[in-house]
Amino acid sequence: MPVAPLETYFVMKKSILKKLRSIVGRKHCTDSETDLICYSYDATNLRYMPDAVVFPETMEEVAAIMRLANEERFPVIPRGAGTGMTGGALAIKGGVVMGMTRMNKIVRVDEENMIAEAEPGVITGDFQKAVESKGFFYPPDPSSAAYSTIGGNVAECAGGALAVKYGVTKDYVLGLSVVLPTGDRIHTGVETTKGVAGYDMTRLMVGSEGTLGIITKIVLRLLPLPETVCTMTAVFDHIEDAARTVSVIIRSGIIPRTLEYMDRSAIQCAESYLNIGLPTDIGAILLIETDGPREMAETEISKLCTLCLSHGARSVQKAKTPKEAHDLWKARKAISPALFKLNPDKINEDIVVPRSKIPDLVKKIDTLRNETGLTMVSFGHAGDGNIHFNIMLDKSRKSDLEKANAAVEALFKYTVELGGTISGEHGIGITKLPFLRLEMSEAEIDLMRRIKKAFDPNNILNPGKIFPG
Amino acid sequence: MPVAPLETYFVMKKSILKKLRSIVGRKHCTDSETDLICYSYDATNLRYMPDAVVFPETMEEVAAIMRLANEERFPVIPRGAGTGMTGGALAIKGGVVMGMTRMNKIVRVDEENMIAEAEPGVITGDFQKAVESKGFFYPPDPSSAAYSTIGGNVAECAGGALAVKYGVTKDYVLGLSVVLPTGDRIHTGVETTKGVAGYDMTRLMVGSEGTLGIITKIVLRLLPLPETVCTMTAVFDHIEDAARTVSVIIRSGIIPRTLEYMDRSAIQCAESYLNIGLPTDIGAILLIETDGPREMAETEISKLCTLCLSHGARSVQKAKTPKEAHDLWKARKAISPALFKLNPDKINEDIVVPRSKIPDLVKKIDTLRNETGLTMVSFGHAGDGNIHFNIMLDKSRKSDLEKANAAVEALFKYTVELGGTISGEHGIGITKLPFLRLEMSEAEIDLMRRIKKAFDPNNILNPGKIFPG
Repeated sequence: MPVAPLETYFVMKKSILKKLRSIVGRKHCTDSETDLICYSYDATNLRYMPDAVVFPETMEEVAAIMRLANEERFPVIPRGAGTGMTGGALAIKGGVVMGMTRMNKIVRVDEENMIAEAEPGVITGDFQKAVESKGFFYPPDPSSAAYSTIGGNVAECAGGALAVKYGVTKDYVLGLSVVLPTGDRIHTGVETTKGVAGYDMTRLMVGSEGTLGIITKIVLRLLPLPETVCTMTAVFDHIEDAARTVSVIIRSGIIPRTLEYMDRSAIQCAESYLNIGLPTDIGAILLIETDGPREMAETEISKLCTLCLSHGARSVQKAKTPKEAHDLWKARKAISPALFKLNPDKINEDIVVPRSKIPDLVKKIDTLRNETGLTMVSFGHAGDGNIHFNIMLDKSRKSDLEKANAAVEALFKYTVELGGTISGEHGIGITKLPFLRLEMSEAEIDLMRRIKKAFDPNNILNPGKIFPG
Repeated sequence: MPVAPLETYFVMKKSILKKLRSIVGRKHCTDSETDLICYSYDATNLRYMPDAVVFPETMEEVAAIMRLANEERFPVIPRGAGTGMTGGALAIKGGVVMGMTRMNKIVRVDEENMIAEAEPGVITGDFQKAVESKGFFYPPDPSSAAYSTIGGNVAECAGGALAVKYGVTKDYVLGLSVVLPTGDRIHTGVETTKGVAGYDMTRLMVGSEGTLGIITKIVLRLLPLPETVCTMTAVFDHIEDAARTVSVIIRSGIIPRTLEYMDRSAIQCAESYLNIGLPTDIGAILLIETDGPREMAETEISKLCTLCLSHGARSVQKAKTPKEAHDLWKARKAISPALFKLNPDKINEDIVVPRSKIPDLVKKIDTLRNETGLTMVSFGHAGDGNIHFNIMLDKSRKSDLEKANAAVEALFKYTVELGGTISGEHGIGITKLPFLRLEMSEAEIDLMRRIKKAFDPNNILNPGKIFPG
């Protein structure tokens, strides 16, 4: 079960609450326990009670709140939909959670220049649909897209299954409006592909996990909607063959839109949940999509079928209709919910290695599984080397928890040795903070601290995240 | 003619020269006047004499020089090939120019993971050829590619003609090795598409114009080499039709590889230089390329021919052979050298507006031309709204120079009003520094100053660039 906060560092004076209410209006600021509980957790299952939750509607209100926070020195924690996996939206030192949900307008879709402007609280899935209805494509597609917000996606630099061809959130953010922790308002970036006036503040903000400023508007680049998407799966007897085929595919000159991977445990798990006759005696399955002009996408998917068969696939299956494509995705999408059938608790880590190292990573996971006897499931975005590694366990069994934690640390170390990173798209937050030194030197962490100070001299914006102190 | 420095802020002690020589070896450090003159200028035609020039070979040597610079408080100015257009490599306060030319190895081309690692002194064109020979494509292609360096390209975030489809340098830099101004060594970024551990220091370094750190190694993302490139030109009677067609093309869902534009003055200028029978009674020419699988690229270029004709083009021409494509490019490539036939001095500004605003920009240039009576030539990367605007004049005619400067300022103001930027790919350096406030607020400039301080507490690395003091 979720743990309660050990300590609330900041306890709010009633006078502050009054001032907050005068900024946003009484009904947009709450300190009732029921409300606070709703904003005390995120997708990590950890819990920290804030002192208040406030819902600003304008950049001016955000700025006024930040100025007050500086005067009174209380922590402010910006929050989108709370779907973060590493604790970025948790009020670990108490203070005020700033819910961005009222700032939820798509300000404009500029068809001629193929850009859109959105407030941070817009749901990513809604945004995708809105631009699709005008013939455009916004590729970043985290699994949480149906409920996570664009602002949260920018703060965490969300990725997803399409990154292998289309990159991640940072590749689509052209400019931002930001309220600095000091209350100053700035605009970063441009509305054009090119633009080099001054330091790249836009990219510095993206992925800064709500520690450098509060994003109040986002200018995003759009692409033309691809004409077709083609979908296929390839079933491999041996996981190593599947892993090696990933590199072969990319090296072939065809960059698929998605290149997803599921290991045997993942498939078994999905099958026990769905009962649709998935083959469970296998090594791994690759799920691959191409897109673009119809003829090109179809030629490419056929080439990839042949290529998989000549690199160890037992069978391949190409979707002939959108319905068939949807069925091929069913297993992949069922894995996450299905995992809890195995055991009540999940440790879910998001690591990345260079594509060519996926076979090594796969072997390492096998070794760890054998050594610990724990249930380990891996799946994810193999095309960009991004593997979601899960340990399903009952955390109340202390020895299992200890073994699991040791396995995670061993896997992180090995990932960094392979030239990879401990976080592909979930951020560092608080859950990966203890492992940051595996990847970064003291000089690198010190530099981040100095940058944080340049933005936030009083350390009031989302303090205690990413790096120690 | 080049101007001499008004003042050398720092005058070097002989003891420092001795220490520099002990770090890099006697023959890699010079203070002879002849040598210093060679490193006193860049493509701006301004001149500032450094006190010494030093050529390190390793990251360790770079770090030792920076530690010494901190002890003795002398400026260090990193320099690639000196092709910068805004004075980024000029020793405006004296000090030591650090030439990166000895660090010129392509460390590796990792074919499986489609990345390459290069030292900063590698010539961009050499790098492009090296990866092409292995079937890969490095798209950033500044006009200076034949002699500028990858390190300089990263420091300035170089663009070029392919940005409309492929983006600019920042879109290809995955990771960096950097010596901080303090002498600390850091590594930024990852070798994978995804990676969100900590702040995005890589992107902060890219385009920081050598003010935040000295880049000693660069990890770059590569693409598969496109199968075909198709080339066409479209001649328009009216420049406004050409400008409008740019938006229509992009909106059609086809993203061309290049979409270049030349106005009548540019064509006349090229013709007087080349004498190849270019039509000089025109409004403008668009030069367009598509690339990708052969069939797709060919279909697309045919569609674009039709589209240009139906939007006001007098004629279109499609290259049937590489030789014909080369001929179509001839005029575009001749413009820059040909300009000096018109007048001895060039003011060359690099502005960007949202594509849909190009017609407005074109009109404004016409007005300025009529008002001042000066020779103005515009051409450039219309596909991404990046227009190179040139005034050819004799700077010794004081009244012409004054009119030209006023026209540049008026154009910058209008560009920003249109939602554009005063620098698409040349940086701010010192030549655009007086105009930075047209685009950025005091709060934004102050934040840059604080970031500069977080990296460079003693302000010794390339001081006086980008923003005032």
